[in-house]
Amino acid sequence: MAKDIVQGFKASAGAAGIKKNGGLDIALIFSEKPAASAGVFTTNRVKAAPVILSQENIRKGRVRAVIANSGNANACTGKAGLDNARREAELVARELGINPDEVLVASTGVIGTPLPMDRIERVIPGLVKQLLPEGLQGAAEAIMTTDSFSKISRFEGEAGGKPYQILGMAKGAGMIMPNMATMLCFVLSDIHIDSIHLSKSVSFAVKSTFNRISVDGDTSTNDMVLVLANGMAGNGELTSDEYERFQIGLTHVMDTLATMIVRDGEGATKVVYVKVKGAASQEDAETAARTVANSSLVKTAFFGQDPNWGRIMAALGRSNIRMEEGDVHIWVDEIQIVKQGLAVGDDAEKQASKCMAQKEFSVTIDLRQGKHEDQVVTCDLTPEYISINSDYRS
Amino acid sequence: MAKDIVQGFKASAGAAGIKKNGGLDIALIFSEKPAASAGVFTTNRVKAAPVILSQENIRKGRVRAVIANSGNANACTGKAGLDNARREAELVARELGINPDEVLVASTGVIGTPLPMDRIERVIPGLVKQLLPEGLQGAAEAIMTTDSFSKISRFEGEAGGKPYQILGMAKGAGMIMPNMATMLCFVLSDIHIDSIHLSKSVSFAVKSTFNRISVDGDTSTNDMVLVLANGMAGNGELTSDEYERFQIGLTHVMDTLATMIVRDGEGATKVVYVKVKGAASQEDAETAARTVANSSLVKTAFFGQDPNWGRIMAALGRSNIRMEEGDVHIWVDEIQIVKQGLAVGDDAEKQASKCMAQKEFSVTIDLRQGKHEDQVVTCDLTPEYISINSDYRS
Repeated sequence: MAKDIVQGFKASAGAAGIKKNGGLDIALIFSEKPAASAGVFTTNRVKAAPVILSQENIRKGRVRAVIANSGNANACTGKAGLDNARREAELVARELGINPDEVLVASTGVIGTPLPMDRIERVIPGLVKQLLPEGLQGAAEAIMTTDSFSKISRFEGEAGGKPYQILGMAKGAGMIMPNMATMLCFVLSDIHIDSIHLSKSVSFAVKSTFNRISVDGDTSTNDMVLVLANGMAGNGELTSDEYERFQIGLTHVMDTLATMIVRDGEGATKVVYVKVKGAASQEDAETAARTVANSSLVKTAFFGQDPNWGRIMAALGRSNIRMEEGDVHIWVDEIQIVKQGLAVGDDAEKQASKCMAQKEFSVTIDLRQGKHEDQVVTCDLTPEYISINSDYRS
Repeated sequence: MAKDIVQGFKASAGAAGIKKNGGLDIALIFSEKPAASAGVFTTNRVKAAPVILSQENIRKGRVRAVIANSGNANACTGKAGLDNARREAELVARELGINPDEVLVASTGVIGTPLPMDRIERVIPGLVKQLLPEGLQGAAEAIMTTDSFSKISRFEGEAGGKPYQILGMAKGAGMIMPNMATMLCFVLSDIHIDSIHLSKSVSFAVKSTFNRISVDGDTSTNDMVLVLANGMAGNGELTSDEYERFQIGLTHVMDTLATMIVRDGEGATKVVYVKVKGAASQEDAETAARTVANSSLVKTAFFGQDPNWGRIMAALGRSNIRMEEGDVHIWVDEIQIVKQGLAVGDDAEKQASKCMAQKEFSVTIDLRQGKHEDQVVTCDLTPEYISINSDYRS
């Protein structure tokens, strides 16, 4: 896939036997030149060892490599776990002839089990030898856990007459549940940008994308978004217009990945856009959208194609936002099912149910309390979710 | 069932065709003498019409009757819904020859559909005629929705040499989910007690029972606990010892009902006691227990009999309590699976998995941050939950 290339980046993937099924479970990404970097990390108080190490290394400056494994989260593994993460960085650095501080580490998988360091150690020299510009697709596959497909998204831009690329890969499924599975996202670009502007862009993009598909604070022990920009596009300092376009491009890449994650929600059959408008404040709009989007009863009704707006009203009522029952209007796509807090009627609900038979639809709630709006993307809750998660470790 | 009798109370049940399957869906409870009363009502901002009316009437003083229906929540039904609730109280009052203010109204079922008042009107005279001391069992059945069994619990006490009864009935299933289904509970006693002491006892009992099986604030539009005490036991003013024993008895009755509700959790196969000790504050203990007990991933692991303590750690980590990963200890029943934040080992997990094969087991978390503890009772999350809730209205 010649398209999945970014100037100056190489990648490789391997099977270290961390996953029980013997599949690809380790990926290496390498930048020929030291890259400006920025990251967003889990806010969970229980942070996996690779999160602690990568936070530390990203603060130190330029980054050259990312080593990531699936099958084992290296979380709740204590001091030995942190030593293992450091050891991974050292092994990669030694083979690549770089500094261990220039290596970021990411892990996803089962919590509480030590990394099989002997096997990882054995596989790293091969990963370095196999580094190729075309290796990014394989890397995207190697970080998958319960994902049913690999996730890559791209954007092409221009700055100072020089074309540049942004390529993102992510793993994650089911994070739209009240407990999210680990989400990893690596974005690579050859744009030349300073770390401060890069960090700002990343915070902005994450806020309106990945943070809109998960419950506030419901972060796993291992979540991270890492963005590397190696400057090999050769552009000069970005004008404010160019910077803005880069931000849009980065948001586009993350938005596409975030929607892929929802679509790949564990056992999900539908993607639902929960839109709230007319909220009294931005916070109310967000809280209302999140509460509805994360309600197990609402999500189960989505699965059943049941426009059960009573559950939406009940979720709004317990979300602690400013609202008046008699002011609420609700639509499924273009079909209004609630008018001033009351049912529009059976015909409307029958039509709404037809909309809900689609793979994607929207639910719009107008609170009529103010001018603020927000959106959270969610999926339906299905029996398949239970079966995926009840035997995840076995 | 001669046991399910409380002096001075009569009840009856009927089928008004509110439920589609034609089953019992309306219940009447009557007290021969005006009863002291106390209630706890949903905190949801969207309150069903019967909640609004019963809150109003309970403030006015003594109560003579409760009319309750299943199959229709009379929620999100606007002014017409409130008129219907009042009309129900009036119809009951007229037939019984009492004041409409002395009638409490409760509903549970589908939200947003008008009550079929013609059918309810037709059935009320018969309900009054059929009132019997032995009618409480039938009433408990008539208020069921997704419940798989009716729930009655009792306590016998003595005050001033006079024996008294406390009998409670409840409906509810699945309220241990992030969104709780409606919970109705009616408790009847022939004890003589003033309204102030009764209210205090009810608040105390609800706090440590029903509020420990649901998520804080995750109340439905229709939840209510109503307690009536008609004084027919003939005891005098309660001594502080007697009052305390009544409080214990009332708590026992509610605790039994609450556990029945968990056991009847929609599709649940296991009851799990999530105990947190060593918390830095009472609030931390409660928050930790609730977050773990309501985690979909943890509840799904319960179903899979997987002692997946990583999910417990991740839930603790996002619950925003004071904790140190390396201080956490976790047990399943008596089997320790986590010691100082680390796995005890495969053997321990195998034993823990055997404990989890039981219908009831406990998960104990010691945070080692302080002396506070709390417990939340929960159930497992199963594929059956989805199928119950995806076609609830059809």
